[in-house]
Amino acid sequence: MNKQIIMLPGDGVGKEIIDSAKIVLNTVASEFGHSFTFHQHAIGGEAIDLYGTPLPEDTVKACQGADAILLGAVGGKKWDSLPGDQRPEKGLLGIRKTLGLFANLRPVKGYRSLLHASPLKEEVIKGSDILLIRELTGGLYFGKPSERRENGDAVVDTLYYQRNEMERIIDKAFESARLRKKHLTSVDKANVLESSRMWREIVDEKSREYPDVTVEHLLVDAAAMKLITQPNRFDVIVTENLFGDILSDEASVLTGSLGMLPSASVRSDGVGLYEPVHGSAPDIAGQGIANPLGMILSAAMMLRHSFGMEEEAAEIEEAVHDSLEQGYHTPDLQIKGGKVVTTKEMTEVVVENLTT
Amino acid sequence: MNKQIIMLPGDGVGKEIIDSAKIVLNTVASEFGHSFTFHQHAIGGEAIDLYGTPLPEDTVKACQGADAILLGAVGGKKWDSLPGDQRPEKGLLGIRKTLGLFANLRPVKGYRSLLHASPLKEEVIKGSDILLIRELTGGLYFGKPSERRENGDAVVDTLYYQRNEMERIIDKAFESARLRKKHLTSVDKANVLESSRMWREIVDEKSREYPDVTVEHLLVDAAAMKLITQPNRFDVIVTENLFGDILSDEASVLTGSLGMLPSASVRSDGVGLYEPVHGSAPDIAGQGIANPLGMILSAAMMLRHSFGMEEEAAEIEEAVHDSLEQGYHTPDLQIKGGKVVTTKEMTEVVVENLTT
Ligand SMILES: CC(C)[C@H](C(=O)O)[C@@H](O)C(=O)O
Ligand SMILES: CC(C)[C@H](C(=O)O)[C@@H](O)C(=O)O
Repeated sequence: MNKQIIMLPGDGVGKEIIDSAKIVLNTVASEFGHSFTFHQHAIGGEAIDLYGTPLPEDTVKACQGADAILLGAVGGKKWDSLPGDQRPEKGLLGIRKTLGLFANLRPVKGYRSLLHASPLKEEVIKGSDILLIRELTGGLYFGKPSERRENGDAVVDTLYYQRNEMERIIDKAFESARLRKKHLTSVDKANVLESSRMWREIVDEKSREYPDVTVEHLLVDAAAMKLITQPNRFDVIVTENLFGDILSDEASVLTGSLGMLPSASVRSDGVGLYEPVHGSAPDIAGQGIANPLGMILSAAMMLRHSFGMEEEAAEIEEAVHDSLEQGYHTPDLQIKGGKVVTTKEMTEVVVENLTT
Repeated sequence: MNKQIIMLPGDGVGKEIIDSAKIVLNTVASEFGHSFTFHQHAIGGEAIDLYGTPLPEDTVKACQGADAILLGAVGGKKWDSLPGDQRPEKGLLGIRKTLGLFANLRPVKGYRSLLHASPLKEEVIKGSDILLIRELTGGLYFGKPSERRENGDAVVDTLYYQRNEMERIIDKAFESARLRKKHLTSVDKANVLESSRMWREIVDEKSREYPDVTVEHLLVDAAAMKLITQPNRFDVIVTENLFGDILSDEASVLTGSLGMLPSASVRSDGVGLYEPVHGSAPDIAGQGIANPLGMILSAAMMLRHSFGMEEEAAEIEEAVHDSLEQGYHTPDLQIKGGKVVTTKEMTEVVVENLTT
């Protein structure tokens, strides 16, 4: 299979880890007889510096013609004082919206050799394996009006959803639950928000189409508590955009290995954008020590979700797992008796495990 | 001083713990020569059963004439299927809004004898002492329109704030920080929401009036992470209504003693409503084993914030602390070598410590 992959390194460590994904994907290509073509484009702060906009037309066009997109990270102090619509994050929001990538998939699973670094007690976090699904192109992030009122004495943002926007993400969640432990937690604030009441109705309607999946409703405040006190009670969690932003980041620190976590933002036809959960990490950028595993695991998610290459994805995940079991890790992690390596070395270890 | 206190026991364990507050307050009254008059009224599910509405006119009137209000808890399975505007929670939202109780104060502090029950590792949670201040009468909770659109094919909720609503809660936060460690964390989503950008501007403006307080801005998703990974980096946190709902509940489970946490909802003239953070706990209601300490500590907050009785408040807090150090606790807690007692016995222990 020949696949066109757009690479958007972005800012900070994004530039360093994107190469790791390329190296690993090239290895997979030659092992399995695929051909991946990579095209690199600018986004975020880099694009602002080069072209004066976080999302150049050229980047959008390239992404529209792609089979999938890999993104490093966007943002950094340098661009923090720019007005809202000229900031690096706008590039990310823009590409999600333009491509219609409505489903954000955030798996959170602990690695045995890293669990000791969790802020949670081992008996609390042990056995946790969560897939958080966040609606990504609706809600408060995009609703209009979003503006100052009354000569600047008031302000309004709008939480707007269409029924079909809720339906498709809820369908995606039920389908994902089917492939896992068949338990779905739907998170809303139905005791306050009208949008949440509609969300809850749709979940209840849909649940009749998926009788094999058990469903529970949880208020967002209760969910924020339970993620900490009983993370292993969850299987798939589905929620709207803003709740998902907060809860997925909350969930991402539970296992103590943020640098390892991948994410996918996909739409129904399989096109998707894949990026590690960690940000651009300006504090360590340029030193060659960033953890490439979140990026590499994002590439694995791409193979699975956009290209249907389940076996190839699983091999990458296994190679990452083996590399950690062998004790190799970048300085952001700690493994007892392990060996600290650079971004490049870590990537080589993964490739080594992939080919043996 | 003679003070008129409205008691709203509400539902579930609310009915059982409200008496504990009364007993403790009567003890304080006789020790310090105050006189407290208590008037009991219905709210929430109980009010629905008795009067067909979660917030009877009579209750509102009584609260409007009060010096302060103590609330047990509202809600329960029995009323969960009622339409949104007839649910017990509406009583709570209604009383907050009607009385203009715009500032919700949620202190989170660990008790040494209980920290072992925290889901977090002891080295992570140790030393945490957070005051979370949530805006309580604006934002998505109350903005209009909040309705179905396009024949039910779309839905909208509105996040609306007036400048002065932001200013007064931000002032409250700066003033609170002044009385503590002088560090304020303001939480928003300024990279996406216009309302958050206005919020951030106001915080920056106000910070010039409080040069002795250091301020940091944190995005809500980052705050959700840092509360778990570094809870002891915070002093005062201030944020808008919905973010505050989520983050304050997240924060409430960190110390492992939810049943102990008080809260206050106040306005500028000192009138306030005080309630424990835990809910109506229908699973243990009626058994006489509910933990009364969150309620008792809420009464202490009332003395401090509504009546200016700092010494009296501190004595209650010390009595609670001593009671735990002596090993007494209700079944929701665990203390090594401790003694499990009922709601009534726990209250007696606190009174005993208060009078010796
Ligand atoms: C950068 C920001 C706009 C973005 C979001 O809130 O969606 C980020 O926090 C994320 O979760 O990917
Ligand atoms: C009952 C509910 C409406 C309420 C809220 O969200 O404000 C509760 O969760 C709280 O935090 O006091």
